[in-house]
Amino acid sequence: MPHSPAPAIPARFALLDAWWRAANYLSAGQIYLMGNPLLREPLALEHIKPRLLGHWGTTPGLNFIYAHMNRAINARDLDAIFIAGPGHGGPGVVASTYLEGTYTEVYPHISRDTEGLKRLFTQFSFPGGIPSHVSPETPGSIHEGGELGYSLLHAYGAVFDNPELLACCVIGDGEAETGALAASWHSNKFLNPARDGAVLPILHLNGYKIAGPTVLARIGDEQLTQLMRGHGYEPRFVSGHDPALMHGLMADALDASLDAIHAIQVEARSDGLGQRHRWPMIVLRSPKGWTGPKTVDGVRIEGTQRAHQVPLTGFAEKPAHIALLQEWMQSYRPEELFDADGALRADIAALAPRGTRRMSANPHTNGGLLLKNLKLPDFRDYAVAVPKPGAVDAEATRVTGEFLRDVMRLNAGERNFRIMGPDETTSNRLGAVFEATDRMSSAEILPGDDHVAPDGRVMEVLSEHLCQGWLEGYLLTGRHGFFSCYEAFIHIVDSMFNQHAKWLKVTRNIPWRRPVASLNYLLTSHVWRQDHNGFSHQDPGFIDHVVNKKAEVVRVYLPPDANTLLSVTDHCLRSRNYVNVIVAGKQPEAQWLDIAAAERHCSVGLGIWDWASNDNGVAPDVVMACAGDVPTLETMAAVDLLRTLLPDLKVRVVNVVDLMALESPSGHPHGLPDAVFDSIFSTDAPVIFAFHGYPALIHRLTYKRRNHGNFHVHGYLEEGTTTTPFDMTVLNRLDRFHLAADAIDRVPRIRDTAGHVQQHLRDRLLEHRAYITRHGQDMPEIADWRWVRH
Amino acid sequence: MPHSPAPAIPARFALLDAWWRAANYLSAGQIYLMGNPLLREPLALEHIKPRLLGHWGTTPGLNFIYAHMNRAINARDLDAIFIAGPGHGGPGVVASTYLEGTYTEVYPHISRDTEGLKRLFTQFSFPGGIPSHVSPETPGSIHEGGELGYSLLHAYGAVFDNPELLACCVIGDGEAETGALAASWHSNKFLNPARDGAVLPILHLNGYKIAGPTVLARIGDEQLTQLMRGHGYEPRFVSGHDPALMHGLMADALDASLDAIHAIQVEARSDGLGQRHRWPMIVLRSPKGWTGPKTVDGVRIEGTQRAHQVPLTGFAEKPAHIALLQEWMQSYRPEELFDADGALRADIAALAPRGTRRMSANPHTNGGLLLKNLKLPDFRDYAVAVPKPGAVDAEATRVTGEFLRDVMRLNAGERNFRIMGPDETTSNRLGAVFEATDRMSSAEILPGDDHVAPDGRVMEVLSEHLCQGWLEGYLLTGRHGFFSCYEAFIHIVDSMFNQHAKWLKVTRNIPWRRPVASLNYLLTSHVWRQDHNGFSHQDPGFIDHVVNKKAEVVRVYLPPDANTLLSVTDHCLRSRNYVNVIVAGKQPEAQWLDIAAAERHCSVGLGIWDWASNDNGVAPDVVMACAGDVPTLETMAAVDLLRTLLPDLKVRVVNVVDLMALESPSGHPHGLPDAVFDSIFSTDAPVIFAFHGYPALIHRLTYKRRNHGNFHVHGYLEEGTTTTPFDMTVLNRLDRFHLAADAIDRVPRIRDTAGHVQQHLRDRLLEHRAYITRHGQDMPEIADWRWVRH
Repeated sequence: MPHSPAPAIPARFALLDAWWRAANYLSAGQIYLMGNPLLREPLALEHIKPRLLGHWGTTPGLNFIYAHMNRAINARDLDAIFIAGPGHGGPGVVASTYLEGTYTEVYPHISRDTEGLKRLFTQFSFPGGIPSHVSPETPGSIHEGGELGYSLLHAYGAVFDNPELLACCVIGDGEAETGALAASWHSNKFLNPARDGAVLPILHLNGYKIAGPTVLARIGDEQLTQLMRGHGYEPRFVSGHDPALMHGLMADALDASLDAIHAIQVEARSDGLGQRHRWPMIVLRSPKGWTGPKTVDGVRIEGTQRAHQVPLTGFAEKPAHIALLQEWMQSYRPEELFDADGALRADIAALAPRGTRRMSANPHTNGGLLLKNLKLPDFRDYAVAVPKPGAVDAEATRVTGEFLRDVMRLNAGERNFRIMGPDETTSNRLGAVFEATDRMSSAEILPGDDHVAPDGRVMEVLSEHLCQGWLEGYLLTGRHGFFSCYEAFIHIVDSMFNQHAKWLKVTRNIPWRRPVASLNYLLTSHVWRQDHNGFSHQDPGFIDHVVNKKAEVVRVYLPPDANTLLSVTDHCLRSRNYVNVIVAGKQPEAQWLDIAAAERHCSVGLGIWDWASNDNGVAPDVVMACAGDVPTLETMAAVDLLRTLLPDLKVRVVNVVDLMALESPSGHPHGLPDAVFDSIFSTDAPVIFAFHGYPALIHRLTYKRRNHGNFHVHGYLEEGTTTTPFDMTVLNRLDRFHLAADAIDRVPRIRDTAGHVQQHLRDRLLEHRAYITRHGQDMPEIADWRWVRH
Repeated sequence: MPHSPAPAIPARFALLDAWWRAANYLSAGQIYLMGNPLLREPLALEHIKPRLLGHWGTTPGLNFIYAHMNRAINARDLDAIFIAGPGHGGPGVVASTYLEGTYTEVYPHISRDTEGLKRLFTQFSFPGGIPSHVSPETPGSIHEGGELGYSLLHAYGAVFDNPELLACCVIGDGEAETGALAASWHSNKFLNPARDGAVLPILHLNGYKIAGPTVLARIGDEQLTQLMRGHGYEPRFVSGHDPALMHGLMADALDASLDAIHAIQVEARSDGLGQRHRWPMIVLRSPKGWTGPKTVDGVRIEGTQRAHQVPLTGFAEKPAHIALLQEWMQSYRPEELFDADGALRADIAALAPRGTRRMSANPHTNGGLLLKNLKLPDFRDYAVAVPKPGAVDAEATRVTGEFLRDVMRLNAGERNFRIMGPDETTSNRLGAVFEATDRMSSAEILPGDDHVAPDGRVMEVLSEHLCQGWLEGYLLTGRHGFFSCYEAFIHIVDSMFNQHAKWLKVTRNIPWRRPVASLNYLLTSHVWRQDHNGFSHQDPGFIDHVVNKKAEVVRVYLPPDANTLLSVTDHCLRSRNYVNVIVAGKQPEAQWLDIAAAERHCSVGLGIWDWASNDNGVAPDVVMACAGDVPTLETMAAVDLLRTLLPDLKVRVVNVVDLMALESPSGHPHGLPDAVFDSIFSTDAPVIFAFHGYPALIHRLTYKRRNHGNFHVHGYLEEGTTTTPFDMTVLNRLDRFHLAADAIDRVPRIRDTAGHVQQHLRDRLLEHRAYITRHGQDMPEIADWRWVRH
């Protein structure tokens, strides 16, 4: 068999190099082979997969780093995890976890023998097998790396409050061009070496993306050094392609970096957080497709963008390529790596760390193993007293802030709860949490700063990407969190939500993955109350985006007042494996339910408000439905108008907290059975539905319901800017007058005789708008309106 | 009247300082006053707005920079525009444009006298007035700055291909924490000083966001310098608070920066692009709320986060605050600034640049003024010959790539067309454009690079944020562009799309804003063909997100083949003021329509494919509808099965290109009239609708249609990963067998007798899946299936 000449590997790295060759061999095998896994017979077309899918380019570099990390883990007894930013190097990480034995432990049919190798190879990117990325199926992974940009954030999130943990985070130079990654270098200002673990970023410059050169590979070492120093890191460069040299360079850089991390931690933990240190990081310059084919058909492959996916293809048409593939794979000398049965040779296998020191078996990467329930105070203790519906005002988020403050206090000892927000915790009126903790910063703190401390547990940075990414890393390693955000700007992380929801969906079908805490969003400073900011800050569409994901992982709540928000928040903090989206306002608003009623209401998800209805539970003329705090207020005021002006009209009021209760049971587990739905919304009465978001969402959720043809939804129509709260509802036809007028218009019995009422409603609306335009504020009768007379 | 002691302003800056004071005075006036604009009577509660809305903190700094830019424009006859990253400093930019006279030119009722001042003040953040940000209503603005992160991208986009243009871009230190902004510093590697203009970034460190300190304000000048040098900039620092010193420092820094830009441009334009230069930038450290109240009620305001919005409030409860406000506003000495009639004094007004040299009147900021139609080749010349539907295969995007190549060639002289893509132009099979131009890079270029040159017109960077932001800036300054992207990852810019769509919606109602070219997305490498990447790369939901925006600005197209894609692309490149979303695959797929038929089909938007139907245009048993290339293929194969197995079944085939044609005419201008819709989809036949995206979107668009209750939509269900193309459709029940079975099931006349056909379909489906699982590829009869027998 043709061999490449063995490079002169220094003896101390001989076994490590063998491990690396084994990982590279298994990586190429996964991309190419479905038979003859050890090349113990001449390679033939039938051994090669008919469809070649995967990414070789980044893989040998990932394997190189993984092998060197194992050396360091053994030498230092490190508690470490591996984050593969270039997650499309999946075959590499899968190979390494297989070499460590973990893969076979969780998937026994992928055994450590020739048959297991064949299965390992075949399943990769194969129908019914495993996907090409470092997906949830990969033991040791908390980061798929499919959508690029989030590796460093996941790494930081993982080590927060894990003082002994090290996250080795490989960042591809393609990924480094993304917005999220570019901002996330600054995460080191939000890490406290006294209480948190450490991240070792390894920027892997292989020079090319799919097609073009990368930015950071072309700015030169001097400028790159400045950039990293500017970000607060001290880079060490490992550059080259000759393994005989590269092992020594990498080992030295890694040892120096780990020494530096150790020194920073020792100092911070003994002398306190003193001067700000530069954290170590490594720049690894190695060829794309390293150790793969140098040239194919006269075209250079290794070290170019052409090594990105599958460097050798077209075997049916070009049989000579079969020999090239065989030569390439045999250059790793599999006969030196695997024994007669196909098991990794014992002396090489002995390089793997032991038990949970293996990065693939580190329990932090299967966070549910470590998850402890949050200690929660009784949310009822924070209730607003509501002697009568509508009689008192409260700021819903401020009340929940007090609950969260005590959640923070009760779990301070466990150090497993953090609150994220893009500089909006106080603005969103959750400020009570600052009675229990501070904003986190390990950067310079000045006397005038408001609740900023290196021990703070509120993570504020003006980047939704950072908040989201840190939280994902924190949750996936078995902790809890709460993310409050301006409603409109949560769209900045639409795609990150996508990836997290997909991760959760997949993990539900992986038996060894234990449930993690849900990702809880509180969307506030919402569309209806952008008094300071106007049109650019108005977008209630995140929930439309969320409901496209698998019903089994998403939940959406629109509590109408403070007590329902308390109940929903408590529920979400207890839940597992979901993304919970809560939408609630921060402004003083009328309160409707006392805490007992709120709890009952939330447990069903939607229901008739008997106390507001006058249909005595039978045959309403019209159903006035609402979801969201502002729509609920306007609906109640509309019902007030209707019952006052047309006392004979039979009105039923329905409030929806759990949006997914509207969906059919076949579409979402929270969907109400049709019979219950029909009993609430009737099967024939017009339903005037005042909705917080875009009206189409209600239609989309209810189109299978029997009465859907009678649903008339009012919601946000992309109208209005900096104006008064009431005017916002008028401009979008969600106000009490439009709702009442629509109700009258839909009831033929009334419509034909209520012309004077309609005229009255129109007149009053005009009067209000004239007042608003003249005075710049709502008429007192709007602002002070109370649901009191009924 | 109480005066602050006048600072000892150097004589050469006396008038400039007066301008700045005037701008600050007008800014405070906008936030606070609705009467008594020049304080010529004692300030009283009735003069103060009842609701105080706006942001003071950033405003004086913006005014300072604007005034200094004007000095430089006059001195150097610069062609410059102003980008206010902290767009919530709207009152400042509005004030400056008013001082320049432009505001009154476009809004004559905001006259340059006392009455005009009163109107200027009152309208700000007032119902029926203007919003609080640097919104489209602001002359000279191409950047609202409501959602933070995009200022530097808009600045670069504006100066591409505008060699004489300078964009002065103010970046707040809050904004600098966002992902998009962090990545966008690297834009300088995509700017060619020989053919493009220049951006002068001014990082405005006022130290605080809404509540917390900012990252870049707390890393020290040394580290910040390293960071900026690492990004390829040479920072100059202007730090302080005493205007007597600050004017000189700012003028010197600005002059040195402009000299440096000039030198870079001269060198690049005479000697060619040689060494990479560091571009100048300025770091301005000034207090938040500079020149505003120092303390209020004993609490420090200036220089703290408390200056962020409205520093003085509560006038009704605290009448003493009225005096504080009067004192603050009079500290600007309005009596020295405005004449008896309320006009800016002539000597101060003379500081404004002349005509279009005013940044507020620069035609680049009203791009439609400069917009030239693209020269377009006849798209019919690129048509795929389709002798018979389904007879040939083609790669739709590859064909359109040839069209785009010639668009590039025809407009090379005008230099007004660019293609954006996150490193995916070749992957998305638009590679023909590289016959006409290259990838753009002004960084180091190596021999092995594939079509990379500093004169390239294809902008490739692995950041959807950068592609989107550059393109927005390019379009808003009157040019054309085309953005191709992997479908799943366009969600990364959901929120940027939001802001651009909102901008377009508002500009449609501003008479002086001229229409700009549409923002054209080609979403490819779509959900159904993620062969290499799997689940993380599957998300067709961007179109759900898009249709939430105003119907007047959004268009969505799903051309089923190459010729329809050509027709749609041609249409989109001609359109104005829209966001056009085109979804089309890149893989070899069956072709259905010759170019004449394609053009007819696209002009209506949807239609019956008579040649595929056997209902002779009357009373179909079932309508087989489809939208998208893969759904069309599966629908055609399903129709093939149905017509073969059940020749008596009357099948009508409807294909939808223009998704909004499904919407009611009241919902979207493209919506088909109900009568036409009913004639196509019938009013009673079952409609089996195979859809590219999430099924709910079709329900949401059609729920008002008469036959909606009979729509049965098949689409993406968040199932499948790296598997075969056909298996992807099976896992999501979009395949031919599921479609045919569903059709049979919905026609009672057939259903009850076609049990054997249903069994046959089930058997064949199982047979296919077994083959796929065994062989890793689709059975040849699937891959080679042709619509030929009919």
